[in-house]
Amino acid sequence: MAPHSTATEDLAATALENKIAQQPSRPSNGSSTLAALDASKLTYTLADPSARAVPDDATAFSGNETICTDHMVTAVWHASTGWAAPELKPYGPLTLMPTASVLHYATECFEGLKAYRGYDGKLRLFRPNLNANRMLMSTLRISLPGFDPAELERLILALMEVDGPKWLPRDQPGRFLYLRPAIIGTQPQLGVQAPREALLFITASFMPKMDAPAGGMKLHTNPEDMIRAWVGGFGYAKVGANYGPSLLATNEARQRGFGQILWLYGPENYCTEAGASNFFVVWRTQDGKRQLVTAPLDDKLILDGVTRRSVVQLARERLGEELEVVERKYTIDEVIEADKEGRLIEAFAAGTAFFICPVSQIRHRDHDIHFPMVKGESGQYTSMIKGWMTDIMYGKEQHPWGVVVNERQ
Amino acid sequence: MAPHSTATEDLAATALENKIAQQPSRPSNGSSTLAALDASKLTYTLADPSARAVPDDATAFSGNETICTDHMVTAVWHASTGWAAPELKPYGPLTLMPTASVLHYATECFEGLKAYRGYDGKLRLFRPNLNANRMLMSTLRISLPGFDPAELERLILALMEVDGPKWLPRDQPGRFLYLRPAIIGTQPQLGVQAPREALLFITASFMPKMDAPAGGMKLHTNPEDMIRAWVGGFGYAKVGANYGPSLLATNEARQRGFGQILWLYGPENYCTEAGASNFFVVWRTQDGKRQLVTAPLDDKLILDGVTRRSVVQLARERLGEELEVVERKYTIDEVIEADKEGRLIEAFAAGTAFFICPVSQIRHRDHDIHFPMVKGESGQYTSMIKGWMTDIMYGKEQHPWGVVVNERQ
Repeated sequence: MAPHSTATEDLAATALENKIAQQPSRPSNGSSTLAALDASKLTYTLADPSARAVPDDATAFSGNETICTDHMVTAVWHASTGWAAPELKPYGPLTLMPTASVLHYATECFEGLKAYRGYDGKLRLFRPNLNANRMLMSTLRISLPGFDPAELERLILALMEVDGPKWLPRDQPGRFLYLRPAIIGTQPQLGVQAPREALLFITASFMPKMDAPAGGMKLHTNPEDMIRAWVGGFGYAKVGANYGPSLLATNEARQRGFGQILWLYGPENYCTEAGASNFFVVWRTQDGKRQLVTAPLDDKLILDGVTRRSVVQLARERLGEELEVVERKYTIDEVIEADKEGRLIEAFAAGTAFFICPVSQIRHRDHDIHFPMVKGESGQYTSMIKGWMTDIMYGKEQHPWGVVVNERQ
Repeated sequence: MAPHSTATEDLAATALENKIAQQPSRPSNGSSTLAALDASKLTYTLADPSARAVPDDATAFSGNETICTDHMVTAVWHASTGWAAPELKPYGPLTLMPTASVLHYATECFEGLKAYRGYDGKLRLFRPNLNANRMLMSTLRISLPGFDPAELERLILALMEVDGPKWLPRDQPGRFLYLRPAIIGTQPQLGVQAPREALLFITASFMPKMDAPAGGMKLHTNPEDMIRAWVGGFGYAKVGANYGPSLLATNEARQRGFGQILWLYGPENYCTEAGASNFFVVWRTQDGKRQLVTAPLDDKLILDGVTRRSVVQLARERLGEELEVVERKYTIDEVIEADKEGRLIEAFAAGTAFFICPVSQIRHRDHDIHFPMVKGESGQYTSMIKGWMTDIMYGKEQHPWGVVVNERQ
């Protein structure tokens, strides 16, 4: 920040944008004494590949523990030296002091993306640059270190280059692994301050398919006294602080047979997110136009989802006049009104974990909204958009969004 | 929850209150198969007391690492079995899987209190029951396991019974240690869900005195696009999610020479907290009455601070007619108006870490408010209240708020 700056506005959003723009690219040009994150320095310590077998799905999803692949990538950061050389090494526990920042002050952020074994035998990530860019925004929002997003993307690819062939066998197309990059504040010092030590780690793990629950996903609106995010808060960042506090309402909803909370906002009850996913409604307007509606990004309440962004782009490109795509604030009362007037067509949640998951019901206070399910499954547009994205992910359609991993043989 | 319950209101605040009321007392009466947290089961594995020397203050505060005492207390919780027997054991690192809930979803909460070596040679905690009660509220708010607060209080005392004599020598009255109980979600499973495994740990550490910065504490109001907490959020709970997101604005303020953010709320710009402390102003009303004003608890925006509560109680009991104590919403404009009219008397931040810390300045946008400092130090009421509390903490006044630790010889 310029020393002569006095405008209060610089303190927050503008400052964050400046920081994002200031991230160094690799290689460090010598003007800074702090080492940048550099994927070309990645060291490899390989696990014994025979030590662990790849479990079948039943085994992988039976316990209370996520099964990860043989390796993980880690990189240590210190405020005084910058990023140390990243390491690819056997998956295993982390050691943290009880005073580590992350355990007290939620100095943590993460990303979620998947690696897909294609029907052409190739292994792909889906738009990983978007995840890397978002992780940079999240890490700076939570006062953790920045990096060049292209380096993070290279590290993610490096992990899959090593673990892809074994954990997503070429002869089993249609399978995926879940990739989880995360950064945590590790400095072992109590006190509310930005950590001077941090750890980036990337794991690859099994995750069940969650995009087609029997009968569709059922949503319950949040109780009036429990709100996910706020204008001026951090709802747009993928920081831990958005998740833990949401569990209480989610658990109560689950005890009533609902899968996720539909988070409303403000006295107007604007629809924002469904659980930790973005939310879309397809309806007919009162003058008969078909619309795909979702909450906007500009008030920074919701996550700029990669799936959300892709849905919006594909629907605009491929459905054109047939289905108008609208990003705007809309209220639960508008949805209820459309339901009463028979104008609701479909609804779905969109995110990496749930992919594109049809929504069959919303309960808001004493009111139930039901969405038509075709043969108990997705509606037409939900199926169509999901199909296009699946084809890109699994290589049935060659598309620049599908980034091929150069796997080790 | 009763199966016939349908009121949405049950989902959140009411449900939380019910859960707090339902915590079992020790011993478990057999009606539940889950073990309750039970301090009487504490096992002791003692460190070699000669292995580590007690550092002097210069050494203790010179590095980027918090120095803890010889021991810590830990207790493991599983959803299927409840709380295992707590352990007192040598202080050391924790081992977590990279998929541990706390590292991704901020499933974490903590408390902060101090142990004071009194001028009568006794070691005291200050109202530890309030910290234990608040920790129960926080843990349930963040979907971590509950416990009987009296058991947590016993575990805190047990740690100081062992480490007090060495780390707060009887011949050095006026010293203190900082106690940090925390609970974290440890289940190694990705996915936004309440963790089925958790860890309670309690450490005791050195913390510098922060209640008398040269020239007083300087506050900068938050930028308009960054707020700390919101109605319907979790600002009242001591969960990590309230801290990490606040660091960005705090760092920017520090670069401008301010110590903490004065967090305002809403279009009215209500004053809420100063940094991670409660905030008090002493002023004269327009009709000449002296008032001690602080934000109220009822909208659940701010932490129900133990120091805050004690200040309010002592001022009411001991200053009576001289100084009216008012818990109400008040705006920064009211403070500015009082300043312009020469009605401001004093201001201070109150919390365990900063204790009672005089505030000398508030910058709000382009406006500076200065509070009179007496000889560069606290104002009269700040000094008086601080003196009363210090006397209770260090045993100069015998008072039920000072809970004596029965130290091992």
